[in-house]
Amino acid sequence: MELQQVLKERRTVRRFSQTPVPDEELRALLDAGRLASCARNDQRLRYTVVRTPELVNRIFTFTAWAGSVTPRRDPVPGMTAPTAFIVVTGKKEEASSPLLQTDCGAAIQTIQLAAWEKGIGCCWMGAIDRQAIHSLLELPGDCAILYIIALGYAAEKPVHDDIDDPGKVKYYLDDNDLLHVPKLTVDAIASWK
Amino acid sequence: MELQQVLKERRTVRRFSQTPVPDEELRALLDAGRLASCARNDQRLRYTVVRTPELVNRIFTFTAWAGSVTPRRDPVPGMTAPTAFIVVTGKKEEASSPLLQTDCGAAIQTIQLAAWEKGIGCCWMGAIDRQAIHSLLELPGDCAILYIIALGYAAEKPVHDDIDDPGKVKYYLDDNDLLHVPKLTVDAIASWK
Repeated sequence: MELQQVLKERRTVRRFSQTPVPDEELRALLDAGRLASCARNDQRLRYTVVRTPELVNRIFTFTAWAGSVTPRRDPVPGMTAPTAFIVVTGKKEEASSPLLQTDCGAAIQTIQLAAWEKGIGCCWMGAIDRQAIHSLLELPGDCAILYIIALGYAAEKPVHDDIDDPGKVKYYLDDNDLLHVPKLTVDAIASWK
Repeated sequence: MELQQVLKERRTVRRFSQTPVPDEELRALLDAGRLASCARNDQRLRYTVVRTPELVNRIFTFTAWAGSVTPRRDPVPGMTAPTAFIVVTGKKEEASSPLLQTDCGAAIQTIQLAAWEKGIGCCWMGAIDRQAIHSLLELPGDCAILYIIALGYAAEKPVHDDIDDPGKVKYYLDDNDLLHVPKLTVDAIASWK
C-alpha cells in the first residue's frame, strides 16, 4: 500500500473481527516498530505480544475504552473485542523519562501504520490497570508497562473531518454508527517564518 | 512509495543538499503529522515552520548534533546544513506531560516518514537551546518548545544493521563515511504469551 494512503486513512480502531492475527503478522509489526526513531538510538523499549485467548480476555478486563463514545462503542468480548495485545514496556526507573515517552510515541505510531496496511486495526491505550496486567503477565519487577496496543483485524473504518476550531476535537458516532474524528487543519496548527 | 519501503529505509539524516524545500512540500509534512494518533484526540501540538535562510542559520547555531559522530559529521553551514526547521511546541504548563511527549513522538515520526518519500531527510533534535530559539522566533510566553526537526533534501543514506546485543547500539561511520545504525532484532526485544 502507498505510504500516502496509509497516512491519510489510518485511524484508531475499536471494533475487531474475531479472526486471529497470525504470529508472523504480529512479528512484522514489531519489525517495523524497532526501526522507528529513538533518542540516542538507545532502543530501550521492549514488547510482550499477547495472543492466547485466555490472556487476551483477561487483559481486556483491565482496559477502559474511548471516553467520548462509551458505553455505546465499547468492544464486546467474543464479538468485537481485540484478539491480541502488544504490551510496551521500559525499565521502571526510566518510565517517566520524557525521552522514553517520545520513543514510545514514535514506535507505537509506526506499528499502527504498519498494521493498517495489513487490515489490522489498533487502539493505543493508556487507560489501563498497569499493575494488574503486570502481575497477570508475570513481568519482571524492574519492568514498567508504558502503554498497550489493542489489535485485531479491523471491523470498522473511522473517518477524519477537517476542522479549524480547537474547541471541537471531540470524536463522535454519526447516525450510521460511523466514527468521526475531527482533525485540525494545517492552517489551524502551523505558523511560518 | 510503498509504506514497507519507507519503514525499512528511513533513517535520520544529518547531511543535507542546499536546495530549498518548497513550502508546499513542508505543508504536506504537517498535513501528515496532524493525522497522527494523539491522546484523547486533543491535538495539543503546534508547529512553527522556519525556512528563511537567516532564521535557519541562526537556529542552527543553537543545535548540538549527533554525539557519537561529532565533530566528524557535524553539518556545515552553506554545504551540508539543514535548509529548514519545524519547531514543535506545546503549552508551557503541559510541556512535561508524558502524554504530550508521546503525542510528540507519534507526530514527529509521521512527519519523518512522509518526508522520506519526498527525498527529504529529517533529524529530530532534543539537544537544543530552547530559550534562545524561543526568543529568536518571538514565540508567545505560554508556549514551550518540545523538539525541533532539522530538515532538507537528504545528501546521505544511512543504513541499519541488525544486532542482538543491547550493549552495541552506538551508531558509527564506516571507512566510506557511510553511517551505520545498529538496530535490535525482534527476537532481542519481544517475548510472546
